[in-house]
Amino acid sequence: MLDFTPRDPNYATRVHSSFDRQQVMAWIGAKLTHLAPGHCEITLPHKPDLTQQHGYIHGGIIGTIGDTAAGYAAYTLMPHDASVLTVEYKMNIMAPGDGELLIARGEVIRAGRSLVVARADVYAVKAGKETHCASLLQTLMTMHGKADE
Amino acid sequence: MLDFTPRDPNYATRVHSSFDRQQVMAWIGAKLTHLAPGHCEITLPHKPDLTQQHGYIHGGIIGTIGDTAAGYAAYTLMPHDASVLTVEYKMNIMAPGDGELLIARGEVIRAGRSLVVARADVYAVKAGKETHCASLLQTLMTMHGKADE
Amino acid sequence: MLDFTPRDPNYATRVHSSFDRQQVMAWIGAKLTHLAPGHCEITLPHKPDLTQQHGYIHGGIIGTIGDTAAGYAAYTLMPHDASVLTVEYKMNIMAPGDGELLIARGEVIRAGRSLVVARADVYAVKAGKETHCASLLQTLMTMHGKADE
Amino acid sequence: MLDFTPRDPNYATRVHSSFDRQQVMAWIGAKLTHLAPGHCEITLPHKPDLTQQHGYIHGGIIGTIGDTAAGYAAYTLMPHDASVLTVEYKMNIMAPGDGELLIARGEVIRAGRSLVVARADVYAVKAGKETHCASLLQTLMTMHGKADE
Repeated sequence: MLDFTPRDPNYATRVHSSFDRQQVMAWIGAKLTHLAPGHCEITLPHKPDLTQQHGYIHGGIIGTIGDTAAGYAAYTLMPHDASVLTVEYKMNIMAPGDGELLIARGEVIRAGRSLVVARADVYAVKAGKETHCASLLQTLMTMHGKADE
Repeated sequence: MLDFTPRDPNYATRVHSSFDRQQVMAWIGAKLTHLAPGHCEITLPHKPDLTQQHGYIHGGIIGTIGDTAAGYAAYTLMPHDASVLTVEYKMNIMAPGDGELLIARGEVIRAGRSLVVARADVYAVKAGKETHCASLLQTLMTMHGKADE
Repeated sequence: MLDFTPRDPNYATRVHSSFDRQQVMAWIGAKLTHLAPGHCEITLPHKPDLTQQHGYIHGGIIGTIGDTAAGYAAYTLMPHDASVLTVEYKMNIMAPGDGELLIARGEVIRAGRSLVVARADVYAVKAGKETHCASLLQTLMTMHGKADE
Repeated sequence: MLDFTPRDPNYATRVHSSFDRQQVMAWIGAKLTHLAPGHCEITLPHKPDLTQQHGYIHGGIIGTIGDTAAGYAAYTLMPHDASVLTVEYKMNIMAPGDGELLIARGEVIRAGRSLVVARADVYAVKAGKETHCASLLQTLMTMHGKADE
């Protein structure tokens, strides 16, 4: 169905370079741990600085890594001279961000010429066990002719 | 239409106390700058640590303060022995998080017994001028009998 | 803030003509009852054919008129040779579609060159009293150079 | 992960009976074509009455069958004396509702005691070929002690 053949053979370099320029990723301690055409995984170790009033990772931070995972999944499929913009996303939080780390897995579900639809699922890993913590559905825009840096 | 008479006369103390226990708010530098029944405003000064690859505040951080503003707007109307849970939200990002500060204004649009619907609008303030940067629509749940601390 | 000056002075003729070509609107019995730049109102009288299992108007039909109201609010601001496409919407249903008619009021909150963000609020009118029944937040796309008919 | 063992062994009778009482389903011509714990499929043949201005099935009708498929997927897992309520949904429309029929496949992704999160994917079938037309992410509420009829 979907053509997950990247138009840019150097997509991985381009995505990693963009990720590395997101200061907020280093600041929260998130890492880009897997990348493939139409797919991206972001991992975030637990950190008390990121918690809400009950000691779990704040929903907005869960959204931050979900947004980023889905966004870079989309960006793998964009041309080399384009940048990516989040138009909107919707996230359901289904369980608290509780555990030693969070993993956000983004994947493209529709890659159009200008708009890309992607989703991300976020898992909380506690004592090695994954709990499905959040699900995002997202729209992204390809900014043609505006290279990311 | 909506009954914005708080059931808990001490709602402001309860909300401020909960906000103060969100470590992530202090960490990003957000402040609770206005509170009224069904309304909450959060202000976030610009900080390079919070930026994405183009130097603007990351969309996930915009979502973090929007989520918090709408969530505490809802929490003002909840009973004293309840806590608040974000079920889900959807956010449209309409302009970059560009400027000296962001202001998120949350307001309740429907307060049911267990579910509350709220929205938040986020503005980017640059050289004193507000630009409408994001709009959120959110569902929250009242956790009856589970005080926040 | 927003420039609600329509680029096409004949926007009303264009929107009404498009609405009239939506066979589903006639079929459900919806009428376009108000139009202004960036605004559109759709009215739907109650009809047992449109109900769900509890005798209220089905949520999907509430979404249908909300989608249409927000979409045509956006379309008032588009150029004469463009058509409008719904990219996505999110709707909270806050009260049943109960009463003699439903009114959907759509308004643009951000009109970009290609993407438009709009919202719609749907009210159920029972014995003359309006209840806020649903709220939508929507993204639309301007299809430049593709006239609607 | 998910417990897809239905609490009500007669879930299929209960769901079919509720579906049959949705007058709008008969009116648009939708059929419930598959049911399993946590899963529901709705099929809608093309009908000119349901079209928008370009002759495709209206997005709101796509939402109507997506909402219904996800909602009844959730309802399969609810107790026999409960009814189901759509709290909200978000839908991305990725391709026009073009073809001889639409198929909406709903599935539960998280079944909590009161809230259920489900998604639905809608496919347009043209000359026998399925195109992914829309994706929904939805929140539903279990109305305990309120049987559906």
